[in-house]
Amino acid sequence: MEKASMIYEGKGKKLYNTSHPDQVIAEFKDDLTAFNAEKKGNEAGKGALNCQISTEIFKLLEAEGIKTHFIKQLDEKNMLCKRVSIIPIEVVTRNIATGSLSKRLGIKEGSVLPFSLVEFYYKDDALGDPIINDEHAILLKCANSQEELEFLKETAREINEILRSFFDGKGLNLVDFKLEFGKDSEGNILLADEISPDSCRFWDKKTNEKLDKDRFRQDLGNVKMAYEEVLRRILN
Amino acid sequence: MEKASMIYEGKGKKLYNTSHPDQVIAEFKDDLTAFNAEKKGNEAGKGALNCQISTEIFKLLEAEGIKTHFIKQLDEKNMLCKRVSIIPIEVVTRNIATGSLSKRLGIKEGSVLPFSLVEFYYKDDALGDPIINDEHAILLKCANSQEELEFLKETAREINEILRSFFDGKGLNLVDFKLEFGKDSEGNILLADEISPDSCRFWDKKTNEKLDKDRFRQDLGNVKMAYEEVLRRILN
Repeated sequence: MEKASMIYEGKGKKLYNTSHPDQVIAEFKDDLTAFNAEKKGNEAGKGALNCQISTEIFKLLEAEGIKTHFIKQLDEKNMLCKRVSIIPIEVVTRNIATGSLSKRLGIKEGSVLPFSLVEFYYKDDALGDPIINDEHAILLKCANSQEELEFLKETAREINEILRSFFDGKGLNLVDFKLEFGKDSEGNILLADEISPDSCRFWDKKTNEKLDKDRFRQDLGNVKMAYEEVLRRILN
Repeated sequence: MEKASMIYEGKGKKLYNTSHPDQVIAEFKDDLTAFNAEKKGNEAGKGALNCQISTEIFKLLEAEGIKTHFIKQLDEKNMLCKRVSIIPIEVVTRNIATGSLSKRLGIKEGSVLPFSLVEFYYKDDALGDPIINDEHAILLKCANSQEELEFLKETAREINEILRSFFDGKGLNLVDFKLEFGKDSEGNILLADEISPDSCRFWDKKTNEKLDKDRFRQDLGNVKMAYEEVLRRILN
């Protein structure tokens, strides 16, 4: 499958049309951004790592019955995906408090939450992806119904159970992660975007070392080594 | 009923114990604060106006079957209330977009919302009263159950229907308003705090003139005259 015209360039990926109307190619970029793109960087090889990590996780989720946009990995940093119309909600699931949750609500950094928390953020760069409740999501026409929102929450929780258990077996705590969903031409809601250390927080279970984009956000160094370590553990 | 020791001094009211263990006195202050108390002011007579306005509205709501903490007005700026333990959620209901809703979500200032929106804010001055979803409210132990949250939302919508219709008859648009609820010693959830131009936005239906605390927030002048006008219309 060859790339045709570019549809869209995002912060982490470029999307291309293909000769098939229902298929697109996602090219994973080496760019790193944080704090609503106020901080920018680049890490050679990061795109390829995220492409491979996402591929492995999409395969795992598909095997567990989650419907995703993933078709196949084409090469090092290109993935063939089903074309979807992205639902403009970032669905964040949290198992351990950190980042904006701790800061906004005064919840102690690193505390294990009594239940897995699901949050919606309105996917709008100009507004800084503000947090929203279900009624805002309907008001902003992000979703057609409360049922769709419940589906997103339930699916996020299901994915959390699968991934938390999987990464636990790899010596990693899945702290939190962001999902995006899209609708295909038939209206099916599919998991889309990517699942990678750009969109998840992974902490080593023994040392609490951060193995994700927080190494870039917080200038901890060894960003690529951390992503490589996540891939190594996934494959082992 | 006489004031005993002071329980608490808030931004808009002081609360006092009384000789009755289940009753407190709320004294309405002349202080005005905005933007999480970054802006401060004082308007002689404002406390008395809010005490009287709140009295009229609590009476109206009680007559319509809403359970409130209101017992009776004692004098110009003192109200006898049932003692409640405040639920630390500010319940905001919005009919027209303005203020933080317009700013946060890019919704055009002044646009009539397709449905009345209910939002929860975590009542915590140090955190700046951040917006929360239902799961945060449970996590933060603001409420014991989803059922309690649903009760708050349903009651807010009921109150909205009563007040919107009432103020419509007075030539005012009820743009949005903030409610607080509390639990009495038997666990009943009662509407508490106050309902006044400090906690509601009122726009004149004909001129769109603002008759609420936005006159203070936005330095529009004639704050007291606006509050007097609201009271005048309520009584007529």
